[in-house]
Parts: sequence; structure tokens; C-alpha cells
Amino acid sequence: MKKNEKTLQSNYLYRGRIVNLRIDRVELPNGKESEREVIEHAGAVGIVPVSSDNKIILVKQFRKALDQEIIEIPAGKLDPGENPADCAHRELQEEIGFKPGKLDFIFSCYTSPGFSNEIVYIYVARDLKESKIKCDDDEFITTLEVSLQEALHMIKNGVIKDSKTISGILALLLEGQDVGLPGRDGI
Amino acid sequence: MKKNEKTLQSNYLYRGRIVNLRIDRVELPNGKESEREVIEHAGAVGIVPVSSDNKIILVKQFRKALDQEIIEIPAGKLDPGENPADCAHRELQEEIGFKPGKLDFIFSCYTSPGFSNEIVYIYVARDLKESKIKCDDDEFITTLEVSLQEALHMIKNGVIKDSKTISGILALLLEGQDVGLPGRDGI
Repeated sequence: MKKNEKTLQSNYLYRGRIVNLRIDRVELPNGKESEREVIEHAGAVGIVPVSSDNKIILVKQFRKALDQEIIEIPAGKLDPGENPADCAHRELQEEIGFKPGKLDFIFSCYTSPGFSNEIVYIYVARDLKESKIKCDDDEFITTLEVSLQEALHMIKNGVIKDSKTISGILALLLEGQDVGLPGRDGI
Repeated sequence: MKKNEKTLQSNYLYRGRIVNLRIDRVELPNGKESEREVIEHAGAVGIVPVSSDNKIILVKQFRKALDQEIIEIPAGKLDPGENPADCAHRELQEEIGFKPGKLDFIFSCYTSPGFSNEIVYIYVARDLKESKIKCDDDEFITTLEVSLQEALHMIKNGVIKDSKTISGILALLLEGQDVGLPGRDGI
């Protein structure tokens, strides 16, 4: 049986700065019709920055969607047409004030495939050199440095609850354990 | 400096089956005003089911937001007021036709904190017993069984690209490596 859902009609209810909302009328594989709510997003990057003394640099920022400050790896939305690696360089400088000497792609992931096309490209950054560029006007960020083991405990205790941060840190821990990190570029 | 963003006005543009879209007018920590687009979601569960011969059972399904079939751990949205563990039991029976003898919570994560409040509760399910309940009318799912090492290669090669699936599998790999899985309940 054919598995795809044919779009019969597509209707944009909202086009915004971060997301668009689209409602698709679809034909299901069994011939019936249904509706799908789709949140369009330009995609993003998340970077695990590792300092020379093997600490991970995390950022703490207020997220309106959650109405709380949460701890994440540095991350940000792709500008239109921007290459993910360029975005990773830019976000690192904006959010933690460092430029990576070495930037390795680990994997990309869909964050919420049930309703959104958002994809996040995850990198590990090393050989960090100071290089600050200005933050977005509406971002207020503080940084913290933790060891990989401390980061693991923060996941365990629910202090770190961000999806891209959890998978980036777990991937780095696996690298340390030498069981074959899911990296494409030799990390 | 105070980091939270005070809501000045909140405006619902859409209330749907899966998501709501809300625009918040906020006062930033520096006193300026800005707008935040927020996608409200009821939350979800994702379960890594481990068979008696140590295979992971994955599901393949078409996701309209991505316009493609992708491979994920069994997962599903919480019904109103539903306990995440109950939801995990239900989704396992609906999607792969098994009931877990043992269900352990690993961690919960925010999938897209930049614009959504979606939280996913991740579990590992073991001692699986056959027990099929009917799927949702608009879900068309096939299952596949892979070893943990095969799953790791699928992440490495970009065959698995779903965020909750990647973090669930990496967490299970860490458990095997005995470096302290991020679990609260002794797994």
C-alpha cells in the first residue's frame, strides 16, 4: 500500500518571523480525507562547544514558549539561504563569544516531525578562540561551563531538558566511550 | 538583571487538533517590547521498545510536515489529562502491538523550546507481550527490528533523523557502556 498523503489543498493561516502555520487537506493511503496542521520553520543549528580544559559551554536563556529559563547548547535559527556551518560559526560568536578552530558535524534531526518540518544540525566545536559579535537585540543569555559528567547528571536530574542539548551531550559521551560516535566527519 | 519576559498581551490566532498558535506581546528584560510566536502542544511520549532478543522495535510512518516516511521510536500525543506512562502503554499497543512488562522512564525533553512548549517523555519498554489495540484511523505504520549497533549506524548514516529516537537510542547505548545512563528509575 502506498504510504504517502496526497495534498488536496494547502492553506496558510499565518506567516510569521519564526514559524508559518499551514493546514493541508490530504488524501490518506486508504482513500479517506483528513487534515494536517503543519508548522513550517527555517531550520536551526545547535553546537556543543568543548573548551581547552574539556568543559562544555552551555547557555541559559528565557524561553517564552516555556515561560522559564532553560539550559541549552548554543543554538540559533538559520538565516534565509544560510549554510548550517556558517550559522554555527555565527551563533557561537553571538552567544558565547568564541570562534571554533574545529567544527565537526555530528548529525541532523527533526525535532517534532508530528507537526513541524524543523531540522536541527548538530555540531561539536573545539579549539575555541575569543571572538565576540553582537547578540540579537531580544536575546539575553548567560553562559556556564560544566564537565561532560556534570552535564550527564544534569540530564539525569532533569536540569537539562532540551532535546538537542541532550542528544548532543550523549553523542559526545559515546565518543569518549569509543563505541562509535554517530559522526560523519571523523569525530 | 531580571531575565523573564512579562506578557503584555496574548492573542490566539489558531486553536487546532494538534497545535494552538499564540502571539505574545512581551516586555523584554531591557524594557523594550517584542513579539513571541508560541506553538502550544499537549505533550507526547516516545518509547524505546527492547525485544527479548535485544532488538529495538522502530516504526516507519509518513509525516506530512516532512512529506516523507521517517523512522522513529513508537510515540504519540498525550490525551487531555492522560498520564505519560499510561500513554506509553497505549501507544505501544496501538503502534507495535505489544504491552510492556517493564516500563522505565529515562528523561523528558523539550523538542523546540524556541517556539513550542512541546515536551516528550522518553521511556524504555522491556518484557514485551503481544497485545494489539486499534490504531488511530489516520495512522499507517510499519515496524522494523534492529540491533542497537544497527540503530547507531542508522543515526550515523542519517537514516534515523528523529530527535527523540536519536536521544532514546544514545541513552540505551550509554546504558550498555555502563557510564551512567541518564535514568531516574534504576535503568
